[in-house]
Amino acid sequence: MGRTHSNGYKRVPNFFPDLEYTPVLKAVCSRSEEKVKAFAEQWGYESYETDWKALIARDDIDAVDICTPNNMHKEIAIAAAAAGKMVLCEKPLSRTLEEGEEMVKAIEEYGVKNTVWYNYRRLPAVTLAKQIVDSGKLGKIFHYRSNFLQDWTINENLPQGGRAFWRMDAEAAGSGVTGDLLAHCIDLAMWLNGGIKDVSSVTETFVKERVHEETGKLQEVKIDDACIFHCHFGNGSLGLFESTRYARGHKALFTFEINGEKGSLKWDLHDLNRLDFFNNADESTVRGWKSIHVTDGDQPYMDKWWVPGLTIGYEHSFVHQVADFLKSVEAGEDCHPTFRDAYETQKVCEAVLLSAKNRTWEETQVDWKNK
Amino acid sequence: MGRTHSNGYKRVPNFFPDLEYTPVLKAVCSRSEEKVKAFAEQWGYESYETDWKALIARDDIDAVDICTPNNMHKEIAIAAAAAGKMVLCEKPLSRTLEEGEEMVKAIEEYGVKNTVWYNYRRLPAVTLAKQIVDSGKLGKIFHYRSNFLQDWTINENLPQGGRAFWRMDAEAAGSGVTGDLLAHCIDLAMWLNGGIKDVSSVTETFVKERVHEETGKLQEVKIDDACIFHCHFGNGSLGLFESTRYARGHKALFTFEINGEKGSLKWDLHDLNRLDFFNNADESTVRGWKSIHVTDGDQPYMDKWWVPGLTIGYEHSFVHQVADFLKSVEAGEDCHPTFRDAYETQKVCEAVLLSAKNRTWEETQVDWKNK
Amino acid sequence: MGRTHSNGYKRVPNFFPDLEYTPVLKAVCSRSEEKVKAFAEQWGYESYETDWKALIARDDIDAVDICTPNNMHKEIAIAAAAAGKMVLCEKPLSRTLEEGEEMVKAIEEYGVKNTVWYNYRRLPAVTLAKQIVDSGKLGKIFHYRSNFLQDWTINENLPQGGRAFWRMDAEAAGSGVTGDLLAHCIDLAMWLNGGIKDVSSVTETFVKERVHEETGKLQEVKIDDACIFHCHFGNGSLGLFESTRYARGHKALFTFEINGEKGSLKWDLHDLNRLDFFNNADESTVRGWKSIHVTDGDQPYMDKWWVPGLTIGYEHSFVHQVADFLKSVEAGEDCHPTFRDAYETQKVCEAVLLSAKNRTWEETQVDWKNK
Amino acid sequence: MGRTHSNGYKRVPNFFPDLEYTPVLKAVCSRSEEKVKAFAEQWGYESYETDWKALIARDDIDAVDICTPNNMHKEIAIAAAAAGKMVLCEKPLSRTLEEGEEMVKAIEEYGVKNTVWYNYRRLPAVTLAKQIVDSGKLGKIFHYRSNFLQDWTINENLPQGGRAFWRMDAEAAGSGVTGDLLAHCIDLAMWLNGGIKDVSSVTETFVKERVHEETGKLQEVKIDDACIFHCHFGNGSLGLFESTRYARGHKALFTFEINGEKGSLKWDLHDLNRLDFFNNADESTVRGWKSIHVTDGDQPYMDKWWVPGLTIGYEHSFVHQVADFLKSVEAGEDCHPTFRDAYETQKVCEAVLLSAKNRTWEETQVDWKNK
Repeated sequence: MGRTHSNGYKRVPNFFPDLEYTPVLKAVCSRSEEKVKAFAEQWGYESYETDWKALIARDDIDAVDICTPNNMHKEIAIAAAAAGKMVLCEKPLSRTLEEGEEMVKAIEEYGVKNTVWYNYRRLPAVTLAKQIVDSGKLGKIFHYRSNFLQDWTINENLPQGGRAFWRMDAEAAGSGVTGDLLAHCIDLAMWLNGGIKDVSSVTETFVKERVHEETGKLQEVKIDDACIFHCHFGNGSLGLFESTRYARGHKALFTFEINGEKGSLKWDLHDLNRLDFFNNADESTVRGWKSIHVTDGDQPYMDKWWVPGLTIGYEHSFVHQVADFLKSVEAGEDCHPTFRDAYETQKVCEAVLLSAKNRTWEETQVDWKNK
Repeated sequence: MGRTHSNGYKRVPNFFPDLEYTPVLKAVCSRSEEKVKAFAEQWGYESYETDWKALIARDDIDAVDICTPNNMHKEIAIAAAAAGKMVLCEKPLSRTLEEGEEMVKAIEEYGVKNTVWYNYRRLPAVTLAKQIVDSGKLGKIFHYRSNFLQDWTINENLPQGGRAFWRMDAEAAGSGVTGDLLAHCIDLAMWLNGGIKDVSSVTETFVKERVHEETGKLQEVKIDDACIFHCHFGNGSLGLFESTRYARGHKALFTFEINGEKGSLKWDLHDLNRLDFFNNADESTVRGWKSIHVTDGDQPYMDKWWVPGLTIGYEHSFVHQVADFLKSVEAGEDCHPTFRDAYETQKVCEAVLLSAKNRTWEETQVDWKNK
Repeated sequence: MGRTHSNGYKRVPNFFPDLEYTPVLKAVCSRSEEKVKAFAEQWGYESYETDWKALIARDDIDAVDICTPNNMHKEIAIAAAAAGKMVLCEKPLSRTLEEGEEMVKAIEEYGVKNTVWYNYRRLPAVTLAKQIVDSGKLGKIFHYRSNFLQDWTINENLPQGGRAFWRMDAEAAGSGVTGDLLAHCIDLAMWLNGGIKDVSSVTETFVKERVHEETGKLQEVKIDDACIFHCHFGNGSLGLFESTRYARGHKALFTFEINGEKGSLKWDLHDLNRLDFFNNADESTVRGWKSIHVTDGDQPYMDKWWVPGLTIGYEHSFVHQVADFLKSVEAGEDCHPTFRDAYETQKVCEAVLLSAKNRTWEETQVDWKNK
Repeated sequence: MGRTHSNGYKRVPNFFPDLEYTPVLKAVCSRSEEKVKAFAEQWGYESYETDWKALIARDDIDAVDICTPNNMHKEIAIAAAAAGKMVLCEKPLSRTLEEGEEMVKAIEEYGVKNTVWYNYRRLPAVTLAKQIVDSGKLGKIFHYRSNFLQDWTINENLPQGGRAFWRMDAEAAGSGVTGDLLAHCIDLAMWLNGGIKDVSSVTETFVKERVHEETGKLQEVKIDDACIFHCHFGNGSLGLFESTRYARGHKALFTFEINGEKGSLKWDLHDLNRLDFFNNADESTVRGWKSIHVTDGDQPYMDKWWVPGLTIGYEHSFVHQVADFLKSVEAGEDCHPTFRDAYETQKVCEAVLLSAKNRTWEETQVDWKNK
């Protein structure tokens, strides 16, 4: 994640030359001096730190970007906010709802600008989907469905914990696919279709024990390998979500589909420049799903890049989020998703995990402002 | 349905010339004399009846094929079995589990040959999927998901009941998408992946009232417009099912996908001659989803049709089921899915509807023999 | 081909009940008595013949359908016409332009109803393409391209000649892919986009010698294994055509694409129920290729078949041509493509073969009436 | 093009940290001081020039990258080589074969390192295609086909000439789609399938006159709007190429397909992370086109980017070419395509334009070393 964020900061001045502010890479921080020094050189950071508290104590730092495992988010974010820094935090906001609540409280109390890296909102095809939904072209919504399918943990000899596998360690990650992948699905879902009211879920851990990188011992795997839930949205539509790391053949198949009275939309991350749109207003004999190649200058963000037909990739979503963050600083406005927005997503994650545990429907208490 | 079945009987002798038995269209039965007479002429039936009891009473009838609305299945099936006729029954077997139980009991007591028209098993790509699963090429299964998405009832001015809209009338149909569409998904799922153990579901009726064709009055719609459920299979895999008639842009998008340790399969009805197969045993740098165009002579059923590349359609699944039924008569074996198989599917439907009503997980009590 | 045609005749009364005329399968003819007898039984022909002249001499025969290898087309067609029979002839019309000319002359002199089995015109998606072109929705046309790619003759051990491989014997077939496959491409192209004016081509025979089934000897292969040509259409657009039996992975990939000022269309035989349409009149930010699943009742021919979303296959194109032929008899109109239409296609084939031989551009002399 | 190249230089140190050399952006040059100054600031160039001769005269410049319209390539390249600079030149190498010949002669005489920006070779899916071809997995090749379809010049009110439309001005561009788009197709084709021996082509200029930006007058359009050619490769396979700017609905649809005895490959630029591969060695009942999502660490270049499933875009091909150029400097080897390689491509372009003019087959005289 350090690379995608660093790349975001470095490319914005080249592709968004009209912004008032320019990111300056003052310092990067990581525990291993050897590694952080090399990284700083590779990416052109002016300096490095090995203690995040030292970083936060520096006067020349205006903004802190948190790319640590989830178990460090809260402490760093609150300390950075207390020091008056702007805070950009990787998703999910926190391991638990309680942690998230503390973070939102602190960030709002200290009044610092903040955002959470639900970067996929800023892919051109996804932003175009938002514009279509907001235009009313879909009419009343009946269904929303979203998947995030991977296959990288099927091998039962993979360990848990440590630098490379912290996502499989409940202590570091909080949860498995729910916080890692479904959180993305939920963020987009609520952005596009409003708040989720209640959920009914199931989770599964297919490989029950894995060697822990830190202890060297075979230990119970406590994260969810897979999670499925259905739900009601506040607007009366039904939602359906699934994520797993055991879907052989899918590397990072993040998809969503919305079905409304007047039209439908579909998107997937493997072909991220495309948006499929069915418009029921089309003449009946020639109606069909339109495959929109979102690479034209009049489509979101694409005036900054290349000529029509030439695609961008995954990393550009981060560049766009940096640019939008800088714009929001300029305009004195919030940069969504804020910590509060991400906290609402956290409520859904918490309800999903609770529902799976109790085999019950759970209310989310989400209070979503459609932003 | 009368047309698809009649077409099945008529085409089998042309395309399956090696069968010992040949269907003879002795009689067709329907309440309206005018309509049934015209139909008999159009399709070459030797005679017609307007009273199904008269039909069953005839000595020259060996087999009775039931294509009525669901509320007539039980009575006709039991009477036909009692008369010693072979019985072929449209799906779903029955409106309720109780009805289904009586039907299975009767059909087995009378010992007559029977089958239920879960026709999609007999599409070449679906049968090929079964062969791949049975070969062990997918390994241990983690996930199964299946959809059946339509959009034909979004218009709130459509009525319920009557000849054209009986599927929206709970009295005639028993349920909405659960019995009509999910039953197909469940039949294939258990055929491919074994019994479903427990389910957690949600249903929705988006249009609450519609004029009833028989009363002319606005009445409550009692069927499910949409149904979603997740479940555990007996083999430990997670299942996910969704059906709706409110997915704008999808006419009859029946899909399934299976993810196993060693490989995955995907299929959809809109391109029914294709099967997508991901084989993890392929060399890593050139691994990908294979789009298999199932039209070669060494693929299921395709030696009966055209040269490679030339497709068949929906109706051929019925031709194949007729041919397989005749073969099973010849061989003195069961023709799956039998009434008993279909009754197991009925158990899942019942549990799904109950789960939706009670907002609980429900055990299905399915006793599936993998056939 | 005997099966597809027979199937066409038998199914029309079931699916097109409103036609005035009904095909009656009076007799089938083939040289081998054993085979023709079996075929007659399998398909329900009232009688059979082993001498086509005997067939034509019968008074109870109104129409003769020619499904022989190409070297028999001329003699039978002219004799049948002379006997006052309606003539339906498989494509290509003839081996050579000279043969074709004689056939057209005879058929028109005797004034008998006639048609040639360029069956693909009658697929719903293709007929819809014709309607879109004729509506002017594409505007001025710039480009037309079409392929017919197969891979069945790559094996150099396949023979030439005989019942199964007559298409690889120049004496029986006249030419290779040009007459067999490109003829289909050309027929559709001129139907959709008007006459082809001149051509420049190249052909290749990859396997130079194959054992001949009749002589048992290794003999020079004289047909074209592959043929490519570009051309000018009368309307000023450029055309591009390619056919081969050496395109590994393609079984019968017949495609066409038309690019006009206002829109474009694409189609392929492997997914024959779909038509892709790009409409430049769509709002610019949501423009894209529409995938039209041509299975609705208001789309060509589909009111005769199943509910929306349920597909038909290859063989249905023949059913539709039979139905249209019967309608044309009823209406006293020509059933296109007539022998004359097919003769115009033959002119293009001839020019293509000549161009390949001489490495020159060749004028076609096509006189196309857009019908 | 200045942006894609600049981006390439700037990103290489971040993503290819192991390279010995690092690009330093010493100076950028353009005629307009205002524009070049802004560009230098935006991209972090240390200085700027408005006279390219001044640039070449500087001692602190090691390499010159030429991104001008084609009519300036020759003069600058030769001067830069004479000054001992490494030269990187945009494609096509030159407007005419004669110009190209002078350039190759000079660059080789002066012995300076050189490359031409046929960037698409460096897309991971395309490089993977090269590896598959070279591995022998396709066997003997029968067919190669490639398109480059755009639609941006259909509007007849677009001008020719000037900064934005120099590609439509024959004086500046040399040719139309042949040099601009087909040159890319030809470079990949010969890289993947060896030299092209002879060609037969047709070109068309659909809009005959356009206002010239410099004169303000309606003038004849002298470039080719569309060009089609077929050809023989040295290995005996047939080639087919088409390019146009009048294919409504296609923005930059660059595609290629290779058909060999044992397998086939397909690729297109709109989904540039995918490669489709048909492997005839697969078991016959499950054979099909594999859609390879080329985003894994063991696939070309992808160890430098993100985790599997996360895509890169168009611009990355330039980053890769910069990295490969630096590696070749390190290794003291040629960086293909060199000026000489690009000159061979130029021979094909020249033969294509000549063939179109004379309506003849033309030999190319290509002397291709497969590198």
